Amino acid sequence: MDQENSPLPSAVSVPADTGVIAQATAHYQKRLSDLRGLFLDAADLERRIREEDDPVCYENYAFNQSQAEGDIFFGTTIIYPGKVGSEYHLTRGHYHSKRDHAETYQALSGRGLVLFEREDGTTCSAELTPGKVTYIPPYWAHRSINTGDVPLVFLWTCPVEAGHDYAALGGRGMRQVVVERNGVPIIEDRPSG
Amino acid sequence: MDQENSPLPSAVSVPADTGVIAQATAHYQKRLSDLRGLFLDAADLERRIREEDDPVCYENYAFNQSQAEGDIFFGTTIIYPGKVGSEYHLTRGHYHSKRDHAETYQALSGRGLVLFEREDGTTCSAELTPGKVTYIPPYWAHRSINTGDVPLVFLWTCPVEAGHDYAALGGRGMRQVVVERNGVPIIEDRPSG
Repeated sequence: MDQENSPLPSAVSVPADTGVIAQATAHYQKRLSDLRGLFLDAADLERRIREEDDPVCYENYAFNQSQAEGDIFFGTTIIYPGKVGSEYHLTRGHYHSKRDHAETYQALSGRGLVLFEREDGTTCSAELTPGKVTYIPPYWAHRSINTGDVPLVFLWTCPVEAGHDYAALGGRGMRQVVVERNGVPIIEDRPSG
Repeated sequence: MDQENSPLPSAVSVPADTGVIAQATAHYQKRLSDLRGLFLDAADLERRIREEDDPVCYENYAFNQSQAEGDIFFGTTIIYPGKVGSEYHLTRGHYHSKRDHAETYQALSGRGLVLFEREDGTTCSAELTPGKVTYIPPYWAHRSINTGDVPLVFLWTCPVEAGHDYAALGGRGMRQVVVERNGVPIIEDRPSG
């Protein structure tokens, strides 16, 4: 890219309540059937797919003007509220293909958590609530969880060249899970086996 | 950087009303006396420096965890309301040292504009208002303007390696100016001479 073919500036509407970006250049939805293998309670997942006509768990809008290294793209993820068994709705979770690339998340409405883990096994978590910028440093895989009763809408901002590596986490996702215990979200280690 | 010394995740409070980031790793203020040469009306600038005890025009908070290429940093800029002559308060404006690096701005409170120009002389502008993400593409110099009556607080998000090149715009800033005409902000070409 050089200046003649660089993208034009723009001010892009990102509604905090819906997260629907009308100017999005890409959009996808993930239904519960797309997330088989990720939840602890496979039987309840199948029950919900059957009884609720395979509901959308989350969707994603992106505004992406180029693939040129150095450019930034951004978008929204909307995670609908709900649980599979006692486990809250989640995104697949991923490392960046370029492990040394960072990202930021900002909750616009709703509330949740980000689970993090590194390839050396270290884990941690951070809040995803309006009024905070959640910093996703290089080398940390990240998965988002809606722990509330309303859609969790968050904005993500990322270098275009970071890339997504879903395979490195294996089929299951992350080492920790977020489950409801006595009405509140708790982070626990994933049961072995 | 490798995973052992990568920064830790965190959720950083960014208050929309004040823009003051308590966890900031850097902070600076620019007073009117720091901005000599940038406003059209040099006499009114000197009058305000003298009569108002050199007020702060804008300030900046940054949250920056590493200098490693691929990392992202973010922060706030707060531009206080006011005019020098008929020209609204502004930031210096800059190109990125790495011209092919992009950025995003998000107004959190107040309202304003971003002026853009490229080295080939092309100019444009975009809104800086809450509910929108203002995309700053590669190769575009950018200056922010507070066109309202209250502080303009905006969040910026940028690759850490982008760098700031203030010199390429020359002492004056940008080819266009934002001035009040009949009570409303108007973008005009800078008067020659």
